[in-house]
Amino acid sequence: MSDLPAAVHITEEGPREGFQIEKGAIPTARKIALIDALSQTGLDRIQIVSFVNPKNVPGMADAEDVVRGIAPRPGVDYTALWLNEKGFERALKFSDRLTNTGTIQLAASEKFSVRNQNRTAEQQLAGQHAIVEMYKAAGVAVERGSIMAAFGCNFAGDIPIAHVIILVQQILDLAQAHGVTLNYITLADTMAWATPLAVKRLVGALRERWPALDFALHLHDTRGMAIANAFAGLEMGVTRFDAAVAGLGGCPFAGHQGAAGNICTEDLVFMCDELGIRTGIDLDALIECGKLAEDIVGHPLPGSVKTGGTLTKFRA
Amino acid sequence: MSDLPAAVHITEEGPREGFQIEKGAIPTARKIALIDALSQTGLDRIQIVSFVNPKNVPGMADAEDVVRGIAPRPGVDYTALWLNEKGFERALKFSDRLTNTGTIQLAASEKFSVRNQNRTAEQQLAGQHAIVEMYKAAGVAVERGSIMAAFGCNFAGDIPIAHVIILVQQILDLAQAHGVTLNYITLADTMAWATPLAVKRLVGALRERWPALDFALHLHDTRGMAIANAFAGLEMGVTRFDAAVAGLGGCPFAGHQGAAGNICTEDLVFMCDELGIRTGIDLDALIECGKLAEDIVGHPLPGSVKTGGTLTKFRA
Repeated sequence: MSDLPAAVHITEEGPREGFQIEKGAIPTARKIALIDALSQTGLDRIQIVSFVNPKNVPGMADAEDVVRGIAPRPGVDYTALWLNEKGFERALKFSDRLTNTGTIQLAASEKFSVRNQNRTAEQQLAGQHAIVEMYKAAGVAVERGSIMAAFGCNFAGDIPIAHVIILVQQILDLAQAHGVTLNYITLADTMAWATPLAVKRLVGALRERWPALDFALHLHDTRGMAIANAFAGLEMGVTRFDAAVAGLGGCPFAGHQGAAGNICTEDLVFMCDELGIRTGIDLDALIECGKLAEDIVGHPLPGSVKTGGTLTKFRA
Repeated sequence: MSDLPAAVHITEEGPREGFQIEKGAIPTARKIALIDALSQTGLDRIQIVSFVNPKNVPGMADAEDVVRGIAPRPGVDYTALWLNEKGFERALKFSDRLTNTGTIQLAASEKFSVRNQNRTAEQQLAGQHAIVEMYKAAGVAVERGSIMAAFGCNFAGDIPIAHVIILVQQILDLAQAHGVTLNYITLADTMAWATPLAVKRLVGALRERWPALDFALHLHDTRGMAIANAFAGLEMGVTRFDAAVAGLGGCPFAGHQGAAGNICTEDLVFMCDELGIRTGIDLDALIECGKLAEDIVGHPLPGSVKTGGTLTKFRA
């Protein structure tokens, strides 16, 4: 009866998502402690900082110090986020420690794009051509496509599947035009509009059109649907997920104070463990990271398993 | 692609679940205020108190005053929980305000039953015969079967589907022996062991065996799986759910401090609304009840939608 994947890959985004959104200043050493702890759990891809304007995102003013301070663990890819060429150049200075790869990124909603980047859909697409050229010139691989607000947008409402199909085609065309091969395309539920049914329908439609193409899910939990959406993704054969330890984070672009972070990593790993899906992650170690994250930010974080515990001791 | 039900029925258990577990004393008037607010949302079945020993559950010492104090709304069934004959007799005194109906209840785990009721499985079953006789003598309809710990138990571990099938058969046999017809059987994930796959498998197996029998899900959220489990239930055609406003509650019998309450009513209603499944409940009014519940208990409660908000204003 189960057609679930045998294994999934989880990209941890908690440090970047969390530290950029928390209001109080978090000491650099504590950020580093969380990242180093996460790198001991079996997670092999951790987004640790964003190189953005410290005036806009004061919590990331110490991004360079964080990158310098971590104890890189062999086999773990540490990544950074940037939103423009200046940020990208800051990341490039750490090519010894950071795995810098390029993303072709489009927002499913033009209103979102206009509001956040002051760009029409056409300008956005043209901009991505320039960005791919920038990556190629820097010798950075372009591995991923990404569609923001793929399920809905606080400024534009529901996003039709047909529109997402157009955007995936644009991303694939753009990649082909530049001779790059994408490993997968992320469908980001940036503003938490997805339902499990919407996930099934969108992934199903994309799978039908591009059977060989891999999709990842980036699921925010503002309305409590993230774990159900992840399960729906698993049922559709999705094997790549972004997640944030303890549910750290929020979306600074959602225009919405109540926006929550990504799906909680340890809750997702718990579900996968219970479903017999391999993650390669040590859940107990990850739960300790969730508790550490909570201690660092100084307020309760939304993940459930760090409080509720696993079932292991009861089965023993 | 969707085979979801057109409508579901949600039984609200927040007042009973929440007020019995909160540590501080909650003024009777505030309990009444929440119940009266809930009865304005379209919910038509609300469990408002438990008649239990006030020494064990001090938060329910004012159960009689709560029942006397509410403003009963026509069309709303107010119910109470009891665990023994003494509690049942207390409930019977309010047959003018309470909808007292009987349940045939078995625990899927003998260890759980021994621990909480000091009864073996055999004694538990015999006890249910006596209880049904008690209901019949009192003129109270026996409408429901219930299986506690149907997915797993902190004392006994995972519960095999075959064992639940035996218990359902025992409940049906017992009902038949006493000439009562059950409307449905509740599968209670009392200690939060269920996964969406387990829900699908168990409900699927029961449906195959008893196609005409209705099942309800009572889903605790200790490990963050409740909403995914509810979606899995919806996909299997389940149309009855217990839920608790704001996620109020916990399980005093789980032997586990981190045990969380039932699935959050407003999150469940939000999901149903988004899936086009009718609940008959006004989500905005329910969210206000969730905020009221949080104000009453004086600490954050787990529901997401009361913080994240609905999508209505963004679609407008």
